[in-house]
Amino acid sequence: MGAGLYGANKCFRHVTERVSTDGCGAEDLVVFHHQTSFTRLFAHLTCSVLSGAGDDFLSMAECQYIIKHQLEALRAEDETHVPGYSQAKLYPGKSIIRRLQSKGILVQMFPLHDKEELKRLSFSWYRTVRLSLQPLDAIRRYFGEGQALYFGFLEYFTIALLPMAVLGVPYYLFDWENYDKYVLFAVFNLVWCTVLLEVWKRYSATLAYCWGTLSRKKAFEEPRPGFHGVLGLNPVTGRKEPVFPSVSRQLRIYLVSLPFVLLCLYLSLYVMMIYFQLEGWALSVYDEDPTLWTEVLTYIPSIVYAVVIEAVNLLYRYAAEFLTEWENHRRESSYQNHLVLKVLVFNFFNCFASLFYIAFVMQDMLLLRQSLATLLITSQVLNQLMEAFLPYWLQRRRNKKMIRKVLRRRAIEEKELPLAEQVRLEADMNTYLGTFDDYLELFLLFGYVSLFSCIYPLAAVLVVLNNITEVYSDAFKMCKLFKRPFADPAGSIGVWQLAFETISVIAVVTNCALIGMSPQVKAYFPESATQLILWTVAVEHLLLGFKFILAFLIPDVPKHIRVKLAQIEFESLEALKKKKALYFSETESKINDSV
Amino acid sequence: MGAGLYGANKCFRHVTERVSTDGCGAEDLVVFHHQTSFTRLFAHLTCSVLSGAGDDFLSMAECQYIIKHQLEALRAEDETHVPGYSQAKLYPGKSIIRRLQSKGILVQMFPLHDKEELKRLSFSWYRTVRLSLQPLDAIRRYFGEGQALYFGFLEYFTIALLPMAVLGVPYYLFDWENYDKYVLFAVFNLVWCTVLLEVWKRYSATLAYCWGTLSRKKAFEEPRPGFHGVLGLNPVTGRKEPVFPSVSRQLRIYLVSLPFVLLCLYLSLYVMMIYFQLEGWALSVYDEDPTLWTEVLTYIPSIVYAVVIEAVNLLYRYAAEFLTEWENHRRESSYQNHLVLKVLVFNFFNCFASLFYIAFVMQDMLLLRQSLATLLITSQVLNQLMEAFLPYWLQRRRNKKMIRKVLRRRAIEEKELPLAEQVRLEADMNTYLGTFDDYLELFLLFGYVSLFSCIYPLAAVLVVLNNITEVYSDAFKMCKLFKRPFADPAGSIGVWQLAFETISVIAVVTNCALIGMSPQVKAYFPESATQLILWTVAVEHLLLGFKFILAFLIPDVPKHIRVKLAQIEFESLEALKKKKALYFSETESKINDSV
Repeated sequence: MGAGLYGANKCFRHVTERVSTDGCGAEDLVVFHHQTSFTRLFAHLTCSVLSGAGDDFLSMAECQYIIKHQLEALRAEDETHVPGYSQAKLYPGKSIIRRLQSKGILVQMFPLHDKEELKRLSFSWYRTVRLSLQPLDAIRRYFGEGQALYFGFLEYFTIALLPMAVLGVPYYLFDWENYDKYVLFAVFNLVWCTVLLEVWKRYSATLAYCWGTLSRKKAFEEPRPGFHGVLGLNPVTGRKEPVFPSVSRQLRIYLVSLPFVLLCLYLSLYVMMIYFQLEGWALSVYDEDPTLWTEVLTYIPSIVYAVVIEAVNLLYRYAAEFLTEWENHRRESSYQNHLVLKVLVFNFFNCFASLFYIAFVMQDMLLLRQSLATLLITSQVLNQLMEAFLPYWLQRRRNKKMIRKVLRRRAIEEKELPLAEQVRLEADMNTYLGTFDDYLELFLLFGYVSLFSCIYPLAAVLVVLNNITEVYSDAFKMCKLFKRPFADPAGSIGVWQLAFETISVIAVVTNCALIGMSPQVKAYFPESATQLILWTVAVEHLLLGFKFILAFLIPDVPKHIRVKLAQIEFESLEALKKKKALYFSETESKINDSV
Repeated sequence: MGAGLYGANKCFRHVTERVSTDGCGAEDLVVFHHQTSFTRLFAHLTCSVLSGAGDDFLSMAECQYIIKHQLEALRAEDETHVPGYSQAKLYPGKSIIRRLQSKGILVQMFPLHDKEELKRLSFSWYRTVRLSLQPLDAIRRYFGEGQALYFGFLEYFTIALLPMAVLGVPYYLFDWENYDKYVLFAVFNLVWCTVLLEVWKRYSATLAYCWGTLSRKKAFEEPRPGFHGVLGLNPVTGRKEPVFPSVSRQLRIYLVSLPFVLLCLYLSLYVMMIYFQLEGWALSVYDEDPTLWTEVLTYIPSIVYAVVIEAVNLLYRYAAEFLTEWENHRRESSYQNHLVLKVLVFNFFNCFASLFYIAFVMQDMLLLRQSLATLLITSQVLNQLMEAFLPYWLQRRRNKKMIRKVLRRRAIEEKELPLAEQVRLEADMNTYLGTFDDYLELFLLFGYVSLFSCIYPLAAVLVVLNNITEVYSDAFKMCKLFKRPFADPAGSIGVWQLAFETISVIAVVTNCALIGMSPQVKAYFPESATQLILWTVAVEHLLLGFKFILAFLIPDVPKHIRVKLAQIEFESLEALKKKKALYFSETESKINDSV
């Protein structure tokens, strides 16, 4: 770091001083704001790339990312302890911010909302109900690429569902009892979920190219904050840092986490079996005494089961986070992958096991349709409650509290809060925990639609409606309910692409099986069930093979983007050649001069 | 290119002069040899990387590669035509060597063998029969990474087959008629072919890391020599070069090549049906009159069919090359991929269609075993004839011719031929066409072993024997029969890894089906064939899923190599930071001085 480090250390003092003069007390807040001189100081540090460019050269999210990176890269040089905290020792070369966080001196670190920008963004995004697309570029400027890609995917998924929803309504209206006419719909499903993901990959590459994150190289990853271990040598950098033997981690994963996940899956299966018993009991009651009340009773087990599923998913989520934390992964990406894997497997199993059981073991299409509808509607209602109503209610409560506060400090004008006040206010807001839960919800919805929607064509319609409200509630909560999150630069939706593709492979299998079980297809093989199964399996294998070939043949990046990337690489190579040639000719002439 | 280009152009004149003074006549040969001053001239051009290092810094293969690259990068600057050939015009910025080749002025371009090195290599490689492994490093030094990886894979495959061969012999000896006992063998097969390829990937990465080609970035690809089109602008470089619309290419591929391949597949199916008819006829003759002669007759259709398969494969190969050439691919890699795809699909179909038909349509395991044995043995005998006997015979003929020549020019000493003579001699040798055919052979052998060897356990033994002779005959032909090929730097076996992996996926399907069809397993489901099929399919899906998860979980590069790569990257980043810091502090002090 050399020169940079000295400046940064000076700057660190600057932070504490500056914030304390603002009256917040250095002990609980480090704040930064886009327009302060502080930002400019950092922008100066990040040198040549930034200098000489206009205001639009870096988006707000990018500035934030640089600032965060610089703050985290502040390393102690000659200080032995944090100024004013003699018990908080500093070691040369260690991150100061991490130390402050682990010692509890620094409680929170977050970027502030920019009221002006936020107002503009929210007006073009969710304040007015209209038919246009979301302002992805503006979202990306304010929140960063990770957020923008999530909203892009949500929008894309919703639009891609429209043809299915349009097809689904007449199917539902005219064929309600003719549920064996779903073969066509299943075939449509098959093609749809393959094409959907391939096209998304290309669209996402186009977005990422425009945002400059497509060919982003991963930086060298520092250990994640929660990582601990005995002090040892990092084999890569040769520096002293906590080291945790990977054998211990493997043992924790395979001897504790894996059995725990399997146990949870077993418990989930157990709950499912109880549900089927209740269901059977309710049906028998209805058969004995078919009144309105007993008919309502038949729906109750499904609804209870759906609520239980949601609750268990939530509980499991905490357990998975705890376990993954305990596995003590060194890198954030590895932690995320293990967490996503744990949560996805369980949630998939928990939500879909009963549907698979009904479809392929009980082979009761009527019950399958009813279960699917109940599951989908209940989980949507719950989600909307949690994501739209609860936020709205919280916002109103918060508004009241704010007004009370403002009344108490009458001196302050209502519109323009001083910085310190804004900091206090935003510090109380909830912390946004990343796009994980949002993607997880989409993942499950995608599963319902692609796996079983041929049985219940209205599913696509319900998902479209859910997604539209989701856009608004998510936008609202991002802008109004949460602290502004740190921007994270992303070139794709990462591990979620893989998760959705896995679902689409499973969708080929289920849809083929559903087609094979349909009375129409069965009618073609009146004499032999074996023939029918063999044909179904053969077709399924062909489709799977075709799907893999298709995924292989369709390039992940559209051609015009590939040409542009090649162009950039070619130009940089040419520039390098010229620079080298210049260098050699200069050296040569120097040698000639000296001779 | 700047300074480099001028030097290179001068050097081009140097080549023609030098070769003509050696008495070969510039019109038919451009030669280069490791130890000539010419090499040193180029080594000088390739600047700082090469200078200041000992003789071992670059392998012979690497020197060659650099020379070839430099020769191909010779571009006309101010010349308007090839010196001495006024009809061969040169355009500024165009490759001179390409022009010479296309005008027929330059007939051949090849590196010379190094007699000393070759002798040393051949002694440690194939001259002495012994149990040790091949000298892969020496092969890589002499022939380059592409060759060395092929021999490495051949060796690895042979060693990996040993357990199967050892298991196969007692199976064959004691269970010959008990052919329903193959379930265990099929399970072994399943695991084996998955593990084999995963481990190879890691081993190949280790080799490539040692050879420095693991993280090789692909250079910007020039159009391949055969590419033609109207003059237009390259969208990437902005330079004028032949352009061929990709729509026309797509049309050629989908409207001509694809139908042609399908037609060939159909014809191959037709030939197969004829074979089955002949087979049936021969069997009926044997049934009517069971003598020794009619028993021999029953084997004849299989042998004829095996010979026909080999012949048709060869014919198709030429057609595929012609078609792929006609598709007019711009880049060599794209040409290679299309050729490999065409040839693989057809060869796979042609060799395995009859086996699949016998196994899954006729369900005749006895006939399957007989066909597999005949196919395998016939194709091996043919291959050995073509690859070991024919080379030996050619070598003897060549030796005689050489002795005759030497006798004619009595003045020349027998041991040390002058350069010009060596050039003439090697120019007459065959040109080595790359590792394509060698890999193709391994591909088909891998197919026989992994798909059906549970039916005929001796297959592994036969393949091991074949591979051992293959090592010797391939080594012999590389060293003695062919012109020395240009080295090609490679980091992996490329598209072949994918091809082998595809086979291993198909192997899961076939082995599961064979297990499902075995009398033992059938005995578990005496009442219902449907149950049996459903279980087989379920197990197969689980295995496929497990295989994909396994391939995903096992890292392609071993951990110690990943640590080393990260180390290198970290160090280069640190060096860059230091350099930048130095640059800024210098600039700062200059500014301070001027102030």
